[in-house]
Amino acid sequence: MKQKLNIIKIGGNVIDNPRALTQFLKDFSALADAKALIHGGGKIATKIAVKLDVETKMVEGRRITDLPMLEVVTMVYGGLVNKQIVAQLQALDCNAIGLTGADAGVILAKKRPVREIDYGYVGDVEKVNDAIIKNFIDNRLTPVFAPLTFDKEGNILNTNADTQASSVAVAMANHFDVNLIYCFEKKGVLSDPEDNDSVIPTLTPVSYTNYKANGTINAGMIPKLDNAFAALQKGVSKVIICHADELQQAVAQGQSGTQIIL
Amino acid sequence: MKQKLNIIKIGGNVIDNPRALTQFLKDFSALADAKALIHGGGKIATKIAVKLDVETKMVEGRRITDLPMLEVVTMVYGGLVNKQIVAQLQALDCNAIGLTGADAGVILAKKRPVREIDYGYVGDVEKVNDAIIKNFIDNRLTPVFAPLTFDKEGNILNTNADTQASSVAVAMANHFDVNLIYCFEKKGVLSDPEDNDSVIPTLTPVSYTNYKANGTINAGMIPKLDNAFAALQKGVSKVIICHADELQQAVAQGQSGTQIIL
Repeated sequence: MKQKLNIIKIGGNVIDNPRALTQFLKDFSALADAKALIHGGGKIATKIAVKLDVETKMVEGRRITDLPMLEVVTMVYGGLVNKQIVAQLQALDCNAIGLTGADAGVILAKKRPVREIDYGYVGDVEKVNDAIIKNFIDNRLTPVFAPLTFDKEGNILNTNADTQASSVAVAMANHFDVNLIYCFEKKGVLSDPEDNDSVIPTLTPVSYTNYKANGTINAGMIPKLDNAFAALQKGVSKVIICHADELQQAVAQGQSGTQIIL
Repeated sequence: MKQKLNIIKIGGNVIDNPRALTQFLKDFSALADAKALIHGGGKIATKIAVKLDVETKMVEGRRITDLPMLEVVTMVYGGLVNKQIVAQLQALDCNAIGLTGADAGVILAKKRPVREIDYGYVGDVEKVNDAIIKNFIDNRLTPVFAPLTFDKEGNILNTNADTQASSVAVAMANHFDVNLIYCFEKKGVLSDPEDNDSVIPTLTPVSYTNYKANGTINAGMIPKLDNAFAALQKGVSKVIICHADELQQAVAQGQSGTQIIL
C-alpha cells in the first residue's frame, strides 16, 4: 500500500486574510500524513504592482503577465507570500521548504504560445520532477509551492495555482496515495451561489454535466473542476473542494466540502 | 579525503549589473566540483523600497530593518533576485535550488538583541543544518542562498550575506573540503585603494594586523576579513577574496585575488 500524501491548494482569499491564513497553517501543520502546499497569489501582488506603477494588463478579460508584472509576481509569490508561509510553518514545527518550479527544477513549464492572445510570461506545466519531490518528502520536508514555474531558458513563468496543484498531484500519484484538496473561501461547490450551506456533497461526471447545463456551476469553478476530474483519471485517489476552515474534517473523514468522484 | 565544495558569495555590485551577473553565473555553473552560492541584495531593494514609500532607516550609520523593510527584502532577496538567479542557473544546466534560511530550516538565526541600537528584524546565525544541505548536494543540487534567515517564531530575518557565507562554509566543513570564495567588484584586498592592480596576494594574521594598523585595510573590508580568518580557524580549507570575473582562476589555481592563510 502506498503512503498517503495530502496535496493542498489554498486560494488567494485565504492568503489575503492574515488571521484565516494563520489558522489554516495551524490546521495544515497538524495533519499527520505527508503533505505539500500550493498557494495562490492573492491581491497583494496587484496592490504592490499599483504602488510600483506596474499596470495590470487585461486582454479579452484575461490577465497578461508582461515583464514588469512577472517581476512583481516573482517577488510577491516567490518571495513575500512563500517565505512568510514557510517561516510560519517552521514555527509550527512543520519543516517546510518553499519552492518555485525553478528550484531543483521541480516543475518545468512551456511559455504559452501566442495565438489570439499573447499572455506574456505565463507557463503551462510540462513536467513535474516527482523523484526530487519524493526525495524531499522522504526527508520529512513539506514542499510549499509558489504558483511560478520555469522554462529552462532562463525565465520564471507565472502559472495557475489550480492546474499546478493538479499537475503535482498527478505526478506524485506515481509514488503515493494522493488526496488533492482545494481549499477556498466557500464550503464547497454550491448548488445555490447565494447560500453558502448549499454544498453539493459529491460530484460525478454525470452530475457535473447536468449542473453545468443548468447553470448551477458557473465559469469560475469550471477550470478547477475540469482539473479535478482529470487528476482522478490520472491516478489521484481523492479530490475534495472545501472551505479553508474545514481542512481537517475534509482530510480526516471526507465529510466536508464537495468530493469529486469518477 | 573529503569531497571538494566551493562556497561562493557574490556581492550586491554584481547582482546590480545584469551583464556581469550573467557572466558570473556562466563561470559559476561551469565549476566542476560541488558548489553553493550566497548572494547579497544589491541596490534593487533600496530602489523598490523608495517606490513603495518604505523609508530606509539608519541609526548611527547602521541600516535598520523595520517590518516594512523586512517585507521589501523578503520580496526582493528571497523572490526576485534569488529566483532570477535560480532560473538562469537552470538554463545553464546547473540544478540550483533557492533557499532562505527558513526553507528546510537550513539556517536558524536569533533576532539581534536590542542594546544601543534596535536593528529590527536582523538575524545573527545560530545554527546551520549541515545534514540537509549535504543531502541536497549529494542529490546534485546547487544551493543558492538569499541573505535571509528565520527565528523559528514565525519571522524571516535579514542577515549579512558575508557572515552567512562563512557560517555555511564552517558548517559544511564537517563533511567537505570547503573553499570559501568572496567575489566582488575589486580584484582582491588592495594595498592601494586607488590602484585596482595592487592586490595583496596572501594575507596572514600578522600582515592583516599590520595592514589594519597602518590604515591600508579599511573599515569596509574588516568584517569580511574577520569572517575569513574565523572560517579558516573553524575548519574551512581555503578562503579567497577576488573579482567576480576571476572566479574560475581563483578556484582552479588560487592565482587570483587575495588568499587568506593562517
